[in-house]
Amino acid sequence: MKLPPRVKVVEVGPRDGLQNEKHPVPIEVKVAFIDALTAAGHTEIEASSFVSAKWIPQLGDAAEVFARIKRRSGTTHTALVPNEKGLESALAAGVRRIAVFTAASETFNKKNTNATIAESLEKFARVLARALAEGLTVRGYLSTCFGCPYEGAVDPSRVEEVTGALLGLGCDEVSISDTIGVADPLQVDALLGRLAARFGVERLAVHFHDTRGTALANVLAALQLGVTTIDASAGGLGGCPFAPGAAGNLATEDLLYMLHRMGVQTGVDIEGVVAASRLVAGALHHAPTSKYLQAGPPRA
Amino acid sequence: MKLPPRVKVVEVGPRDGLQNEKHPVPIEVKVAFIDALTAAGHTEIEASSFVSAKWIPQLGDAAEVFARIKRRSGTTHTALVPNEKGLESALAAGVRRIAVFTAASETFNKKNTNATIAESLEKFARVLARALAEGLTVRGYLSTCFGCPYEGAVDPSRVEEVTGALLGLGCDEVSISDTIGVADPLQVDALLGRLAARFGVERLAVHFHDTRGTALANVLAALQLGVTTIDASAGGLGGCPFAPGAAGNLATEDLLYMLHRMGVQTGVDIEGVVAASRLVAGALHHAPTSKYLQAGPPRA
Repeated sequence: MKLPPRVKVVEVGPRDGLQNEKHPVPIEVKVAFIDALTAAGHTEIEASSFVSAKWIPQLGDAAEVFARIKRRSGTTHTALVPNEKGLESALAAGVRRIAVFTAASETFNKKNTNATIAESLEKFARVLARALAEGLTVRGYLSTCFGCPYEGAVDPSRVEEVTGALLGLGCDEVSISDTIGVADPLQVDALLGRLAARFGVERLAVHFHDTRGTALANVLAALQLGVTTIDASAGGLGGCPFAPGAAGNLATEDLLYMLHRMGVQTGVDIEGVVAASRLVAGALHHAPTSKYLQAGPPRA
Repeated sequence: MKLPPRVKVVEVGPRDGLQNEKHPVPIEVKVAFIDALTAAGHTEIEASSFVSAKWIPQLGDAAEVFARIKRRSGTTHTALVPNEKGLESALAAGVRRIAVFTAASETFNKKNTNATIAESLEKFARVLARALAEGLTVRGYLSTCFGCPYEGAVDPSRVEEVTGALLGLGCDEVSISDTIGVADPLQVDALLGRLAARFGVERLAVHFHDTRGTALANVLAALQLGVTTIDASAGGLGGCPFAPGAAGNLATEDLLYMLHRMGVQTGVDIEGVVAASRLVAGALHHAPTSKYLQAGPPRA
């Protein structure tokens, strides 16, 4: 079994995780959480989203979060940016790397953002032109690549098409996302293999949800294809809006346990991430879903 | 990615699962649980253990369980048998396939069974001689193949040695078990690859615990080696005695979801297993850990 020697873990807990948590988390807790993740050695942390507080009240304090978090050489704190207005706020907050997102499923994109995929891409053309001119770098998220809660199966050629469009606009990588946690490893092998052949594996990241328990198996399939950028959320923060009560994002601790034990380096300290997850857990009113966090390290 | 077209799932919930559940489950619930698993299409169900009720009170009603469960053509109901006395009880109950178990770690075997591995094997020589003479078939379990809660790392050559001894005594397969849920896919690839080369992959089963979330990734590694017999526990019943509160056995539903979605057939109806898990859940005083059970099937 051939695996890459090193993987970059993109920590999405403070944004994708908290966005799906019901109880408002105080800014002091958010800042301490992000600082703990930074101290754990993460190289990329999606710290918040410059989206309207009307849509996502939990992340309405993005500017203040960016003003208060500690910086560390080697850690990039990124922000999700839905539109040009969000970009201006991100620029004002000193953000140097942003993320944009659209979906591979037309119905999902319409319901989630009230725009067609083509309309989203048009908007991103303007966002990216300005961002790149300002010297920022941009990551793309592509939702529902493995299945849609409304349409069911998603055509891989559509995933390929929208991935190409995001890269063409100037995203340096696209995170191929299993938004509702339905993917299986064979599907990952087929879809990521296809995208890697077309665009190069170094321009692809994977973003799995553990809704039905398959996230780490999907990671293994991606690693075997040479994928070296993997999204994860500390503690497994963030449920699944389409399966209430179910697990959401792949937990960073579970990912790190598997990678490190296989000798795949990340530079991130697993116990530092556990400490960060514990720190935010009290504000969430539920236990984190990370299995490693519950079990702890092997006793001997 | 090459996978076997069909896999045999060995359902261990009624024995390995319930054995680690604290609250006593009434016999009516056990029988209904096993009958539901039988109806779901399982071909092999470990229904109980003929161990002294002094050691495992939860399974002290094994004879009555076997007397009351419904039989179905195509389903074998097996029992764990720790010694000759247990074998006599199993024979009296009409059991036709038994399982014996020892460990790859000396300290674990000593603490778990108060015998050295050599003493366990001597005892099994007598158990198997009588069982085979009676026309029974015998499965072997080998615990702590990937790590021991007392010794830490376990020498693969020791796993190979004891596996060979169990097969030599007449076991038709050995279930290579990650008792404390520490294994990673690379380790599975190396250890199972070694054992398959020596003994043939058709004589190996795998038994993973999801304590740190790696069970399905480990299954994927085993499938890629051609392993076609996989143990699982309905609902994920059974915690980990070495990590209180943590997940234990790989949940049958999660395994079936991944296998079926990859086109790997099992003949087992996933919703039938969900129904069985729900049926027993009320008696356990905690929610099942199966993620599929919590999330349900994809909505579209």
